[in-house]
Parts: sequence; C-alpha cells; structure tokens
Amino acid sequence: MFENKETTNISELGEFGLIEHLTKQFVITKPETKLSVGDDAAVIQITGKQQVVSTDMLVENIHFDMMYSPLVHIGYKSISSSISDICAMNAKASQVLVSVAMSSKYTLQAAEELYTGIRAACEKYDVELIGGDTSSSVIGMCISVTVIGYADEEKIVTRSGAQEGDLLCVSGDLGGAYMGLQILEREKQVFLTNKEMKPDLDGKDYIVGRQLRPEARKDIVDLFEELGIQPSSMIDVSDGLSSEIFHLCKQSNIGMKVYEDKLPIDQQTYDTAIEFNLAPTTCAMNGGEDYELLFTLPQGDFDKIKNSMDISIVGYCTAPHEGKELITKSGNVMPLEAQGWENFNLSVSKEEESEES
Amino acid sequence: MFENKETTNISELGEFGLIEHLTKQFVITKPETKLSVGDDAAVIQITGKQQVVSTDMLVENIHFDMMYSPLVHIGYKSISSSISDICAMNAKASQVLVSVAMSSKYTLQAAEELYTGIRAACEKYDVELIGGDTSSSVIGMCISVTVIGYADEEKIVTRSGAQEGDLLCVSGDLGGAYMGLQILEREKQVFLTNKEMKPDLDGKDYIVGRQLRPEARKDIVDLFEELGIQPSSMIDVSDGLSSEIFHLCKQSNIGMKVYEDKLPIDQQTYDTAIEFNLAPTTCAMNGGEDYELLFTLPQGDFDKIKNSMDISIVGYCTAPHEGKELITKSGNVMPLEAQGWENFNLSVSKEEESEES
Repeated sequence: MFENKETTNISELGEFGLIEHLTKQFVITKPETKLSVGDDAAVIQITGKQQVVSTDMLVENIHFDMMYSPLVHIGYKSISSSISDICAMNAKASQVLVSVAMSSKYTLQAAEELYTGIRAACEKYDVELIGGDTSSSVIGMCISVTVIGYADEEKIVTRSGAQEGDLLCVSGDLGGAYMGLQILEREKQVFLTNKEMKPDLDGKDYIVGRQLRPEARKDIVDLFEELGIQPSSMIDVSDGLSSEIFHLCKQSNIGMKVYEDKLPIDQQTYDTAIEFNLAPTTCAMNGGEDYELLFTLPQGDFDKIKNSMDISIVGYCTAPHEGKELITKSGNVMPLEAQGWENFNLSVSKEEESEES
Repeated sequence: MFENKETTNISELGEFGLIEHLTKQFVITKPETKLSVGDDAAVIQITGKQQVVSTDMLVENIHFDMMYSPLVHIGYKSISSSISDICAMNAKASQVLVSVAMSSKYTLQAAEELYTGIRAACEKYDVELIGGDTSSSVIGMCISVTVIGYADEEKIVTRSGAQEGDLLCVSGDLGGAYMGLQILEREKQVFLTNKEMKPDLDGKDYIVGRQLRPEARKDIVDLFEELGIQPSSMIDVSDGLSSEIFHLCKQSNIGMKVYEDKLPIDQQTYDTAIEFNLAPTTCAMNGGEDYELLFTLPQGDFDKIKNSMDISIVGYCTAPHEGKELITKSGNVMPLEAQGWENFNLSVSKEEESEES
C-alpha cells in the first residue's frame, strides 16, 4: 500500500508546471508524432494506414481502490487496459493522451508515481504520450485515456465478421483478475478489522498481478501477423467471457457453443476459486478484466494455431437461432447469460456439486 | 436550474444499453469515419492532411456547478471548449470521443440532457461522435472529451512561431465569461440564503451565456482561410489573456506589449465589473473561459484584418528581454503577471482609481 516519504502539494506547481513536470521524462521519437504535449493540440502525420481510436475512463473506488492498488500499477493499468482495445481491432497502438483529475489528498509524489506507471506502460507497448490534461477534483481520482493506433485497412478486425462454423478462440487464461480482486478485497477487510495485520498474498502473486497490473495482448496481434492469421471477429475480455460472447454474437448475428472443459483456467485461479467456494468455470466465464483476446477464426486456420500454447479453442460459431450455450463437463447444455453473475453463479455451482456428488 | 419530470435509474439500462441509448441519435455521415461507437475502437480513414488531437477534462464543482449549470449546457460546453483547442491550431475539428463518469444521483434523463447538449454542439461544429465510455462514479460527474481535427501541414499554427514586430490580435471580447460566473455565483449565494428567491439574471444574458454555453471560434479559422491569413502563432483564451500571453511569449521566445485601451470589453462585462467593484481591465486580462483566439500576425497582414469587426489588435511582439507589459490608458507601463489574479487586481484597481481621481 502506498506511502509518501516526502510530500509536495500539487498546487505549489500550478497546472502548467504540473503537466510539464510529469511529462518531461516522456521521450518522443516516432517520426509521425510532429508535435506533442505543450501546445493546444498534438499533431500527427498520417501515412497510408487506417487509424483506430479508443477511449476509456478509470474512476477511483469504481475501477480501482487506493487501499490496495499502488498508483504505479494504476497508471500502468490505465494504459495497458486501453491499449487492449486497440489490440482487439488487430491494430498497433502508437499514441496516447492521458487526462487525470485528482483531489487535494494526492501529493506531487503521488502524481509522479502514477506517471511512472504510465511511462512504464508507454515504453513496454511502444506508444508515445502526446497530450492530456490535469485537473483538480473535489474527491477521488479520475483517469481518462485515449489511445490511437494504426492498421492496414484489410487487417482491421471488428466484432461483426464471425461466420457460422468459425472456431472460437481465446488467448491466455481466464478468471485470474477476478480471483485476484477477491483476494485483495479479503485482505482489505482483514486490514480494516485489524490495522496490525499485514496482507497475506502468499502464493497469490499471479492472480493479484492479473488484477493490479494486467497486460494488453499485443504479442497475440504480433503472432497473428507472424502466422498469417486474420481473425473474422475479435473483442477483448474486459467484462467477462460471457459478456464478450454476447457482443460478438449480436454484432456478427451468430450463435455460439462454448465447452466448459476447454476454458483456460490457471491452477492458482482454480485453487483460489475453490478456496472461496466459487465455481472456477463461473469465474472464467463472468470474471472481468482479464484483457485477453477473444476471437473467431475460419476452421481452415486450425493448423496455423494448433501449436500455439497461448491460444485455446473454446468453442465454435453456430446459427443465430441456436443461441449462446455452455456445454458443461458432464455434457449438459446451459444457456449463457451476459451479465447475470449471481444467477449464473448459482446454476454453475449446482452443476459443479452434482458433478462432484 | 435542472429538474427531472420523469426519472429512470441508469443502472436499469446497464452500461452497454446506456451507451447505445445515448448515442443512437448521433448520425455518422463523414466518409472518413469508417467505424463509430459500438466496437472496441473507432476507425478513421485518413486523407492527406495532418491530424490534430486534443483532450480536455471537465470535473463537477471544479469546472461546473450543477446549482446553476443546466446539463444541456455542460454537454455543449464540454464539446465547444474542446473544439476551441483545435481552432487554436488553425485546424478543423472532425471527430470527438466523449467519456462520462456519473454518480447514482444522476438519472437517465440527466444523462440524456447532457447528451442533448453534446449532440447540439456536434451538429453546430460539424463533428461526429465516434467513441466514448460511460462509468459510475462515487460522487459527482467527470467528462473527458478528445477532439480530432485536420489541417494541411502548412496551415497548422502552434504557439511558437511569433516574431518580434508581429501584431497581437484577439477575436471577440474578453472577461465576459468571468463576469457571467460572478453573477451566477452571486445568485447562488442569494438562493442558498433564501430558497424562495429566484435568480435575477436580468440584463446579464450575454455574459451568463458566455460562461454557460461558450462557442469555439471556428468562424475565425474560416475567416483566416477566406482572407488568406496565416497567423504566426495562436492559442485559445481559456485561462485568461495574461496567462495565454505568457505561453506565447515563452514558446515563441519573444516579449509582448499590450495596450489597455485596445482590449475588447463588452458593455455588459464592463458594467457588471464596475457593479462588482472590479477593474474591467483585470477581468479582461485575467478572467478565463472566453475561448476567444489570441494570435500574432506579420505586420504586412494589417490590411487584411483592419476591417474585421470581430478582431482587435491589442498589442505587438517585442524582443524577449523587453518582457511582457501592459500599457495603461494613462500611459503607465506595468509588468504582466501570468496567474497573479489577486496582486494584479490590486494594482490595476489602484491605477483605475488614480485615473478617476
């Protein structure tokens, strides 16, 4: 949890001083970034490709909790989670604009820590900070990130191109960020009850990291290029697999079948779910913030991905009237629900129980 | 002040329903907008020109007060004030992305009113809403707007091109938005003391309008094109003339002389300043949010603008060592201060007094 050694009130610097101070360590090297922070707007020289633009907002106590989220991770996550949207278009992120509103409880050192995380993510994903705004707020923090990326027109992948018969694939593993959040929330409650208690995150580093400092799957976009793969549709898993499946099905006008036994669940996620008396499948289906890529591929591309350890084929696309269904390990068919965490939780729990019995 | 007749809780719609609901009346017609709201990102087809991008954040109780700001005006202002930055680059705004975080005190009807204002501004300035985000917040509202515009490379005007000897010009009039704010704040205090009192805005419609629903000076950018004018530097007046002069001087490495008697001040602004016992010059120099354009021109362009009723020549550019100075009506020379409202206020007040005596 975050502590300040030396503190400076942000108002001592003034708004202009603050922007200059926070952004001076950001290096601009891309030839297409003609003008960056410091004027009324940034200027970009465009070349040939199509441009992809997305914006996201992170709000304190809605998207992050200062009790257990270090500011450096919040800064990193604000960038990586936004870049994830650009990856989901099969495009490459190139520039970001970051606006931050902060209450007076935040010191200059706190703002610096936030921007240290922002800079780390910019370096990791090779994007340049070209603009932004800083503001006071009455209470809490609000971060808004706009990401600009590029792709050749024929490479862009939307949510609407999936066809009946296509394979449904997902990168990485699911449910980890959600279980990491459960651990952090549990330790927060323990701490609130007894301020002497230290958080016990032993053996939970993977899932806690998934929650606090997620990565965008730029490597998967690079892999598509390398393998000559063009997904027919794609979306990033920010609100949970089930919710994203609903988006793809609606926008592509298809149905989908998903196989429970194909869902990629990390052992730590699985064990922690059991520890919390939650069905691991529910966590994988409905836990959000994994920032993995969910995409569909023509069946003919099967050979291209079958050896990719980091991609799981979890189902396939059906006719729209067939709906959205989960085929359980025991062969039962259950309709998916988009955001019905609680109801779904109950029904899958029963399923798990009946399997075990 | 804002009242709801019929109210719906936003959570009834859910995040996706809300975005869809709020943006369905936004029409997309520009051929370069290839994909808009509804996917992971928007897609823009770029043609020849350079791209200009800017982002701004408006925070409740910092930038606006729900006591006297109707949501429809807040929506309008969020767009027009952001477009002002694109105008200040001598570029034309084309697309916007809008993210809004709202606490549960806001109903669906409130969100609709906000978006009605956003849509009115989009229509007025011919820009398309291509993306955004909606989120809950614990308290208050935060609006983040990113604007994308275009200009031919040789048309772009930064803050750094002013030369010694250039004319310093400003569009419209100054100090009105600030005096409008004083009126609104006064009526708020009256209302808080006695809830039966109706706000008295009689004869203050111009300055109250300047504060609540400012316009971006796209018409001035169009005028430049028409008159064949290329400013050597430009900035929009969002933080006050004095502050913007500091930016131009610093980034162009020049000094400036400004003539008090040349400052464009509307009669209503002037009268209200006197009513509040404020020096009108101080309001014009340091009052923010006018969103006028402050720019420099080579002297040779004088003939091109001398008949433009809406442009005032307020001074000229000097060598950097000459500093930033205000030449008062009585011929005194005073150093400008960037943000020193209070100190500056005092000294100009004394000046005004000595003139009157």
